[in-house]
Amino acid sequence: MSAAREFDRLSVVLVSTRNPLNIGAVARAMSNFGFFSLRLVNPYEPSFREARSAVGAAELLASAQEYTSVAEAVAGCTLVVGTTAVHHRDLQHPVHRLESAAGLIRDNLNSGRVALLFGSEKTGLSNNDLSYCHWLLHIATEQEHLSMNLGQAVAVCLHELARHCETRVTERPGLSEDAGLANAGELNRLTALWLESLQLSGYIKRGTEAACEENLRRMLRRLQLHAEDAQLWLGMLRQIVWKLRH
Amino acid sequence: MSAAREFDRLSVVLVSTRNPLNIGAVARAMSNFGFFSLRLVNPYEPSFREARSAVGAAELLASAQEYTSVAEAVAGCTLVVGTTAVHHRDLQHPVHRLESAAGLIRDNLNSGRVALLFGSEKTGLSNNDLSYCHWLLHIATEQEHLSMNLGQAVAVCLHELARHCETRVTERPGLSEDAGLANAGELNRLTALWLESLQLSGYIKRGTEAACEENLRRMLRRLQLHAEDAQLWLGMLRQIVWKLRH
Repeated sequence: MSAAREFDRLSVVLVSTRNPLNIGAVARAMSNFGFFSLRLVNPYEPSFREARSAVGAAELLASAQEYTSVAEAVAGCTLVVGTTAVHHRDLQHPVHRLESAAGLIRDNLNSGRVALLFGSEKTGLSNNDLSYCHWLLHIATEQEHLSMNLGQAVAVCLHELARHCETRVTERPGLSEDAGLANAGELNRLTALWLESLQLSGYIKRGTEAACEENLRRMLRRLQLHAEDAQLWLGMLRQIVWKLRH
Repeated sequence: MSAAREFDRLSVVLVSTRNPLNIGAVARAMSNFGFFSLRLVNPYEPSFREARSAVGAAELLASAQEYTSVAEAVAGCTLVVGTTAVHHRDLQHPVHRLESAAGLIRDNLNSGRVALLFGSEKTGLSNNDLSYCHWLLHIATEQEHLSMNLGQAVAVCLHELARHCETRVTERPGLSEDAGLANAGELNRLTALWLESLQLSGYIKRGTEAACEENLRRMLRRLQLHAEDAQLWLGMLRQIVWKLRH
């Protein structure tokens, strides 16, 4: 089934999850809907692999990969999507509701890897985590009850991704318009070179380096840059940095 | 809000649920999506009302109604829908997939009360429970991993019921998707500054100026740059150009 192969290219990335039972519940929802790649960034309890809530998904949980940073967990992904309850937060990313987000993600899975990030139960994704995201996905919930249980949020997202599976696969022969987007590694190199040229040119004021880097990372991810263009930008920036140094 | 009143007419009915944490998780999902009527038939643990998993839904859980039979719990409902994983069972009911079931339920909520039944974690709904149902709802899951976590199944069903209800979810301001793209003037200024920094840095070889400019213009237009971002880029490039000149 071609959809199955597409689903292999989606990684669910749980960042700083506190409760191992939630990790198990996520694994169960993933196997219900045919997704297999689970990545964990700094899980709070090292014992999560024994979570009894992973009914029928023990194997998936056993093969989950652990990382110590979001950057490593999303390396190789051409699209990184964060999830948010949009609450008391000044979001600087485009936000797509689940219904349209699912279509965008499915399009991207035709050709590239996608990471879908979920933050910790208490605080969600941090601003630093968000700076690795191209855009955000939002499940419409009631104003007074925005915050969903982690396992339930994952289940709702994956069901939405799977629901149009049959039609979508046949709808899109060949490559989509979003084929060949720059991957996370290329975007990181681009961010680093931009930052260096801004530092050398005196654009960045002392003490604002971290904020600048975060803004820059966000901005570059908003661009939906193609891999070929990324190579061009890298070449241009390398030359500019070289000249600024001399 | 008319949708809110419709949602009041849907009761989630949990039959012989064993784990109080699952009851709490169901209450949470209900309040996330705007449903309030929870009915319990013979819950296994009488202590379910203290379930800590009902984050933000303590009130809903406190007002849940208890019954000793399915018959009592669905009294007054014009439509009774059972949920099933369709597994090793000779079903004598029509079965609708969630996507179409949600539409049928919504139609019914216009005028009557609807009960949506979920069976126990271990055995699902019994044949006796099913005998009260008009038809069955089925969430499409993988053949080898049919059985969903109770709270996740409820969340997926209620999200599907809520998803087409446009009146209910007012689009959040500030989340427009394509609003505010950079205009032609901004893109021209950006192209000019880029070109100048590439010239000053020695990136552009003699005789290729025109081709470079054209490539650059195309590339910048592929980015779908937002107006605010364009201002940021302009500021950064001005500084880089200034530095390259000195």
